[in-house]
Amino acid sequence: MEFRLIERIRELTAQARDDVQLGIGDDAALLLPPVGQHLAVALDTLVEGVHFPRGTAAADIGWKALAVNLSDLAAMGASPAWALLGLTLPRADADFVEGFAEGFSKLARPHRLALVGGDTTRGPLAISVTVHGFVPPGKALTRGGARVGDAVLVTGTLGDAAAGLQALQQPLSDDDTRAGLRAFLIERLNRPTPRLSAGVALRGQASACVDVSDGLVADLGHICSSSGVAAEIDAALLPRSPALMALYDEAAALQCALIGGDDYELCFTVPAARVADVQADLSRLGCGATRIGRIVEGAGVRVRGLDGEWMNTDRPGWEHFA
Amino acid sequence: MEFRLIERIRELTAQARDDVQLGIGDDAALLLPPVGQHLAVALDTLVEGVHFPRGTAAADIGWKALAVNLSDLAAMGASPAWALLGLTLPRADADFVEGFAEGFSKLARPHRLALVGGDTTRGPLAISVTVHGFVPPGKALTRGGARVGDAVLVTGTLGDAAAGLQALQQPLSDDDTRAGLRAFLIERLNRPTPRLSAGVALRGQASACVDVSDGLVADLGHICSSSGVAAEIDAALLPRSPALMALYDEAAALQCALIGGDDYELCFTVPAARVADVQADLSRLGCGATRIGRIVEGAGVRVRGLDGEWMNTDRPGWEHFA
Repeated sequence: MEFRLIERIRELTAQARDDVQLGIGDDAALLLPPVGQHLAVALDTLVEGVHFPRGTAAADIGWKALAVNLSDLAAMGASPAWALLGLTLPRADADFVEGFAEGFSKLARPHRLALVGGDTTRGPLAISVTVHGFVPPGKALTRGGARVGDAVLVTGTLGDAAAGLQALQQPLSDDDTRAGLRAFLIERLNRPTPRLSAGVALRGQASACVDVSDGLVADLGHICSSSGVAAEIDAALLPRSPALMALYDEAAALQCALIGGDDYELCFTVPAARVADVQADLSRLGCGATRIGRIVEGAGVRVRGLDGEWMNTDRPGWEHFA
Repeated sequence: MEFRLIERIRELTAQARDDVQLGIGDDAALLLPPVGQHLAVALDTLVEGVHFPRGTAAADIGWKALAVNLSDLAAMGASPAWALLGLTLPRADADFVEGFAEGFSKLARPHRLALVGGDTTRGPLAISVTVHGFVPPGKALTRGGARVGDAVLVTGTLGDAAAGLQALQQPLSDDDTRAGLRAFLIERLNRPTPRLSAGVALRGQASACVDVSDGLVADLGHICSSSGVAAEIDAALLPRSPALMALYDEAAALQCALIGGDDYELCFTVPAARVADVQADLSRLGCGATRIGRIVEGAGVRVRGLDGEWMNTDRPGWEHFA
């Protein structure tokens, strides 16, 4: 059965690439890395009930399992190329596999990402994806290059996915407008958009970069600890969607934007003098970027609240073993 | 917590390699593939209660999670280089992580394999490992090259792991000799040896190769379907260990050797005229290889029993969704 499931996934995700010598169907894939590029590789696992709620549609799970991995490549400034998939299912469920592969391939196709290997196993629903991308030597975005005086920016809006998760748990409203806003937030939770073109555009521009998977405070904290600096964020500057602002009060929306995870936006630092140019570059790609704070001496992330006072951010976002 | 667990694993598996530009600790690893080599990549997932019994020691799980992946590289004739680890644990268990990392690194170290990334998540115990290796262009061993007239060989002995799994479920014997034989079989189950040097030696020699993970009949069947041929195996020729023969009767030992999985030996085909030379090459590496049959026209795997009659092999080995 394993063979047939993987075969079906191969059919649904077919993507011809000259650099795939041997794809799914042997003991390992054989790949031809491009000469003169670095290979960026990331592995992320999603577990039902932890990274997505029980009852999430198979197509959403397929999309998201790939998206969170592509987001890691985006945060490095890498261009995606190949993926491997480890799919663990409670039973051989052809409908689930069809839906999963549809969501996975819908995201893979426009990026010309080829699924080259993996396996299916029996067990509690979980997905491990390994992605490979390319980045020119010296151009990768890391967490360690932020300097005092740099500006801190984020792409898109923050807090939507966390609000979408809450919305899933609330009773449905009859109001069409509210239902539409809810649907937007839930879509942001289930179908995050990895910021790949933004990541490529930030090569040679951003001094440090991370994707917002665990929450802004936690992930910006990773930049700070890797770079040996601190960050100061202004709550009033955090980009929040109209849907988030319409459905949640100010305090709840702020909470989602600061410590909610799963947005998969990029948080990055650039020299202050370069902010406007970088924003213009990203804007041409259809990707908004908002300045939310700055890098200072010290350690950790401080947030200035709407009242101008420093907030207590002891709860550093959502951790998998919290 | 995720961060600390992965940090600890990094400490325990530290392995300096010039081709690792950036290892654990950023959004992705940055690697430098060697120019002029193909990259062989495999991902395998192990789930508790499916791929190893509940109660298996953490160090054995760590070893085995890497071993089954290295075995995929061995079956391609590739030399290992890098791995990523997705570790899903019910709770943040420092003792488990110590044991796991010890077993993992004990196997990784002699192969100079560097752990370069991955993640830890909360959920039912499962491990996904992705391994990367190198193989010269045109030298990889695939499943598709077996030709009519080729001989079929296997390394080592078959059936030990399946017998070890059964031994785990049987009451302990007081007899020291039997206890020692049991321990041998259980060690074969928990600490399989990936046949990496044999795989490298078979480059340019074997016409097809697969590792025996699902059982001889099933895995040799993959060679047959990929190569468009059939295989005939002689049960009397199957290499079986003294422990297997001492603890199990003839029929049970044969069953283990034919359809038992998890041995991680290599099954390969070579032109009949090359058998003696290949056996001598492998013998110099300390790896026995036994001729067990031949490739013929047709499809599927046929087994001649000890009585000289063809056996019924309808049950094609252990499948994950069987």
